[in-house]
Amino acid sequence: MHFAKGHGTGNDFVLLPDPDGRLDLSPQLVARLCDRHTGIGADGILRAVRLAAFPGPVAAVLSHPQQPGHPQPEWFMDYHNADGSIAEMCGNGVRVFARYLLEAGLAPGPELAIATRSGVRVVTDSGDGWLTAGMGPAQVVGTGSARIAGRAYDGLAISVGNPHLACLLTIPVSDLDLTRPPELDPALFPDGANVEVIRVTGDHHIEMRVYERGSGLTLSCGTGAVAAAVRAAAAAGEWPGAEPARPWTVDVPGGRLAVTPSPTASLLAGPAVIVAAGELDDAWLRDAPVPADHMPPAAATRSGIG
Amino acid sequence: MHFAKGHGTGNDFVLLPDPDGRLDLSPQLVARLCDRHTGIGADGILRAVRLAAFPGPVAAVLSHPQQPGHPQPEWFMDYHNADGSIAEMCGNGVRVFARYLLEAGLAPGPELAIATRSGVRVVTDSGDGWLTAGMGPAQVVGTGSARIAGRAYDGLAISVGNPHLACLLTIPVSDLDLTRPPELDPALFPDGANVEVIRVTGDHHIEMRVYERGSGLTLSCGTGAVAAAVRAAAAAGEWPGAEPARPWTVDVPGGRLAVTPSPTASLLAGPAVIVAAGELDDAWLRDAPVPADHMPPAAATRSGIG
Repeated sequence: MHFAKGHGTGNDFVLLPDPDGRLDLSPQLVARLCDRHTGIGADGILRAVRLAAFPGPVAAVLSHPQQPGHPQPEWFMDYHNADGSIAEMCGNGVRVFARYLLEAGLAPGPELAIATRSGVRVVTDSGDGWLTAGMGPAQVVGTGSARIAGRAYDGLAISVGNPHLACLLTIPVSDLDLTRPPELDPALFPDGANVEVIRVTGDHHIEMRVYERGSGLTLSCGTGAVAAAVRAAAAAGEWPGAEPARPWTVDVPGGRLAVTPSPTASLLAGPAVIVAAGELDDAWLRDAPVPADHMPPAAATRSGIG
Repeated sequence: MHFAKGHGTGNDFVLLPDPDGRLDLSPQLVARLCDRHTGIGADGILRAVRLAAFPGPVAAVLSHPQQPGHPQPEWFMDYHNADGSIAEMCGNGVRVFARYLLEAGLAPGPELAIATRSGVRVVTDSGDGWLTAGMGPAQVVGTGSARIAGRAYDGLAISVGNPHLACLLTIPVSDLDLTRPPELDPALFPDGANVEVIRVTGDHHIEMRVYERGSGLTLSCGTGAVAAAVRAAAAAGEWPGAEPARPWTVDVPGGRLAVTPSPTASLLAGPAVIVAAGELDDAWLRDAPVPADHMPPAAATRSGIG
């Protein structure tokens, strides 16, 4: 089985090219692949399936209207969180996905349309290492709070295709203990949500940390960066503002992103890198059984030579 | 550049085949490769160089006497910790190294002699997924203590080619906070040491956690398992005992090992697995520069299709 590994601002993925949709990608295999010590290690899996071959909800993907002037999608991004659950979209993921298709020669650039579970996303390669992804509409859907390390923080509930709670703070975001999942109101977030903590650090400049449902504390999150920019724009009295909106620089633990928040068509820009590509080992893939116990031969019969 | 990834009880390594010793493996490249988000991710690097081609201290490697009846070493294991520092030996590493040479067809089995910075080690493939490595002599060299999360723990200073402080506890080893490096007496350990915390859980059966200098808290450590078995054997009045010594089962966070401790020729047995193999990306290897800032185009000119 072929694979590649890539990352965008430290949000890392195992890419599985599967043009004909033949892989049986069980939640167990996803979790084994994402294990950082006994697998390859990643925040999630991006399976690349030709849209025509994807046996799943293609109708839902294509129910979103196509915008004239953009290419038609050839590839479907089948995204799985590290715990084996399925996610609608991932803004760093779709940029790494596009970088992979371009590097592997599987799609022409510089503009690609990619089908995802939350619609078709256009990614543009600027040629300098950065890729800009259309992130679709961002919407403020309510207010809520998250309990983090025993304290409640107010936030805006924001949809960027997937659900977020974005909390604006006045303390450095590195001060918060995000090693455990923030507690959310299940009535507001029946399927959970990503939680962002945000602080304004300059003119249209914020810092952010994110706890992703299904993946935990990560170095970066693309949809989270969009939600964070929406929260900051709202605090600046710019949501919803004049279009085109001013971009926000978003510093995440894994690097720097730039976000143009929009109620109709947000943009996420940042670097996307392929680290390596290769083949998974057949015995590892089979999860070949290894005995739990195996006494070594007695010391006298097999000696190390020190 | 070719690479593979493998692990032994969760102690994971990037393997770099370099038969002719041509790779310029700088500490920076080691650290980049071992980064779990922006690289491949591993506890350390195992470079495979033909002994004849290794430009370094071959004389030191070969100063150890060869034992009759064992094969001559063909390969040198050039081991680097995740932080870029060099380590003498790694018991899980040498087993994963042997598994890789066998799987890649670079050496015949089932018995291989491997040159390391602390001498020649013989590894035997038992054919069921487990490999047994000769670990050379283990020696108790003194006593000392480690300060862990503000409390001092007494231990035995033990050399297994590399330095250890092995502390026998009566509480579950999972109770200790090992997220920060234990503090050691620099007079006793001028180059630092690995610190093991150990508890006896049954007849010749212990559990162990380890903080490895240069790698931090890991899921397993082969030389650490040997040091732990020596500490347990000493507590059982079996150090140094009759040869052949009785083996100890050593449960580590990443799985189960079996150790036969010996003042002359200890043995370490356990599973060793290759996960994947492939090529590092050329642009990643060059560390091609990416701009730190890059404003996205205005939302009106490039829109995502949501």
